[in-house]
Amino acid sequence: MTEAFDVVDVIRTKRDRSELSTEQIQWVIDAYTRGVVGDEQMAALNMAVFLNGMNRREIVDWTKAMIASGETMNFDSLSKPTTDKHSTGGVGDKITLPLGPLVSAFGVAVPQLSGRGLGHTGGTLDKMESIKGWDPNMSNARMMEILEDSGAVVAAAGSGLAPADKKIYALRDITATVDCIPLIASSIMSKKIAEGTAALVLDVKVGTGAFMRDLDHARELARTMVDLGSDAGVKTRALLTDMNVPLGRTIGNALEVRESVEVLQGGGPADVVELTCELARNMLDLAGVHDADVEEALKDGRAMDSWRRMIKAQGGDPDAPLPVATHTHDVVADKDGYVTELDALALGVGSWRLGAGRARKEDPVQATAGIEIHAGYGEKVTKGQKLLTLHTETPERFERALESIEPGLSIGDTQPAPRTLIHEIIQ
Amino acid sequence: MTEAFDVVDVIRTKRDRSELSTEQIQWVIDAYTRGVVGDEQMAALNMAVFLNGMNRREIVDWTKAMIASGETMNFDSLSKPTTDKHSTGGVGDKITLPLGPLVSAFGVAVPQLSGRGLGHTGGTLDKMESIKGWDPNMSNARMMEILEDSGAVVAAAGSGLAPADKKIYALRDITATVDCIPLIASSIMSKKIAEGTAALVLDVKVGTGAFMRDLDHARELARTMVDLGSDAGVKTRALLTDMNVPLGRTIGNALEVRESVEVLQGGGPADVVELTCELARNMLDLAGVHDADVEEALKDGRAMDSWRRMIKAQGGDPDAPLPVATHTHDVVADKDGYVTELDALALGVGSWRLGAGRARKEDPVQATAGIEIHAGYGEKVTKGQKLLTLHTETPERFERALESIEPGLSIGDTQPAPRTLIHEIIQ
Repeated sequence: MTEAFDVVDVIRTKRDRSELSTEQIQWVIDAYTRGVVGDEQMAALNMAVFLNGMNRREIVDWTKAMIASGETMNFDSLSKPTTDKHSTGGVGDKITLPLGPLVSAFGVAVPQLSGRGLGHTGGTLDKMESIKGWDPNMSNARMMEILEDSGAVVAAAGSGLAPADKKIYALRDITATVDCIPLIASSIMSKKIAEGTAALVLDVKVGTGAFMRDLDHARELARTMVDLGSDAGVKTRALLTDMNVPLGRTIGNALEVRESVEVLQGGGPADVVELTCELARNMLDLAGVHDADVEEALKDGRAMDSWRRMIKAQGGDPDAPLPVATHTHDVVADKDGYVTELDALALGVGSWRLGAGRARKEDPVQATAGIEIHAGYGEKVTKGQKLLTLHTETPERFERALESIEPGLSIGDTQPAPRTLIHEIIQ
Repeated sequence: MTEAFDVVDVIRTKRDRSELSTEQIQWVIDAYTRGVVGDEQMAALNMAVFLNGMNRREIVDWTKAMIASGETMNFDSLSKPTTDKHSTGGVGDKITLPLGPLVSAFGVAVPQLSGRGLGHTGGTLDKMESIKGWDPNMSNARMMEILEDSGAVVAAAGSGLAPADKKIYALRDITATVDCIPLIASSIMSKKIAEGTAALVLDVKVGTGAFMRDLDHARELARTMVDLGSDAGVKTRALLTDMNVPLGRTIGNALEVRESVEVLQGGGPADVVELTCELARNMLDLAGVHDADVEEALKDGRAMDSWRRMIKAQGGDPDAPLPVATHTHDVVADKDGYVTELDALALGVGSWRLGAGRARKEDPVQATAGIEIHAGYGEKVTKGQKLLTLHTETPERFERALESIEPGLSIGDTQPAPRTLIHEIIQ
């Protein structure tokens, strides 16, 4: 087969700071998926993109080419509108768990295609799998059935959606080209557009525990993704939210499910409730349900009913007790004062080292491992008071986990300024 | 085995415009040679080096690490000094052929370790192999014997010298990271320093047919290489010479041998003679033989005697007739005037398409293919006069060759300014 382009010319184009043509982008993504362009060549091109950037037209073409590399889904046959949420990844970010049931309680379908955790941020599937019997695998026909019936589903993203993205992401991970706005935006949006949702709310995390460390970069990423979604006909909105401090009071798989259930029972930590409600309102608004009283749906049990239906529809037992770790270790305050630092990255890496996350794709995770936070950011504590409880099945991991956690904890004499959870909304 | 560094951190360092440490460079070159660092990771690092550069210390470390990846040679046991020449590659550049015998006629050893052509520039081994019986392969012991005896040798560079460079060069070729001064300089100098010559003259080509298109870049490359050589204890000097126009009147393997023999007989084109003599004087000067009358050695047969000894020592027959192409095609002047353009790249690619060069390393070359130039740059021509003769064994190639050659030929009404062959000397 004669190829339309010479890959060296394509790499040279971006290397020399020129624009890649639509045809060059279509070809190089397709040829890489087919194996005609090698990993070393795509790695060189990714580094050139990292350092020289892509303009809006190039990012749109790159995203479209990744969508075209695989199959796409379509929910048009459902009797209700669809809306979805994607988070760029944070520590203690269990929002998907209460959010899907809450939004679906208003008659909207939420087809959450989720992944597993890699690195210090957890994955929704890993969390849900601590529920006895729950299974993320299903046929497309069954997914449509559940969406039509109960409205919320959390499914494993199939390998058929944007396979080029999967291949490129694995390459970026080992070639230091992950944290690049054009590549992050096209990676996320190619999957979400291929997934076929009609509306999408992006939760773009900013802070020490997130890809984006500062508000300017987070805003640029959010703007890029909102534009990509809108161009593709998906109603898209982005919230920029804090990830300097973990979300809620738990990090880890079963621990986060427990907290999510508390939120669905009308309780739970204030920040988790606030962010869940704000995201739900935006998702419903985009789906045509305006001014929904989502707080009320958490309190009156409608969201909890949806949760129970969702778990059961996927084979899970919502009444089964969640697993509990065999070993725990408490971290206590070494003086009186206020919690002035509770660093998301330090605690995320700590939880990962306890066994909640995986170093390689094929590693298993511990359902019970993680961290309970007893004293949140800005709270007053007295010497000897419990700050954290670490959970694991493998107590030899405590030491390495503490090496990450302890430098991220500080107690100061004056109460810090309150944390801003939601910075801004971009649409 | 525990590795000293994480390759992603090393790539990230250069990606973020920081300096690579000596230890990082030593490790990454060694780990790549061992196969612990993958092609895709070295490709990403090369692109980061291409775009963000390396400082002098980093280039020195990179070169040393490539030398350390393999064996080194040593000519200290010879009774005579050693001196060598390296050209960055040009069209019609057969200078090595008369130069080695000429310099060795003054009692100096010239251990030319040469390569094959790739792309539009020819390779010395391909040219020499059009001589019946001649063989570039020999043991190190035999090479020392020939150097001690006749003084000049042209040998195939063994795979043991700087194997890291060989691996990195092959990767750069397919990832658009060839024309990068730090990588070119370290590639050339690692091989030449590992080869063990005491003195080295670099012929840095500048013009359309060379890697370096302008004098500023050529000067920077030359300065970088001269510094690298000097730092490693090799007396190094560089000439910046023209490569807008091919050297001499022939391009191709056997055709260039024929012209080299003419030079050794005291004739040949003026530019080939001038450059051969200037390079020879500089090589001899660095080897301690000052003010040598090299023109005289070409005229009185001493250089020719050396050539014949060199060919015979490597199994060749200096009296065997050179092969001649089965098919030729003449290009004639379409009007009266002066040759105002005779583009080195156009003719180099044309000769390559006629069969003189190879597209892939494993391809054979035609000994007889190439181009004869009847009317040189600046010469007066009349309509219908022969400008070029194209040679090949495969006449179906004429058309594609002419597509490259014809746009590189121009006849104008006024005589162009004479070409400057040697721009400057850097030491």
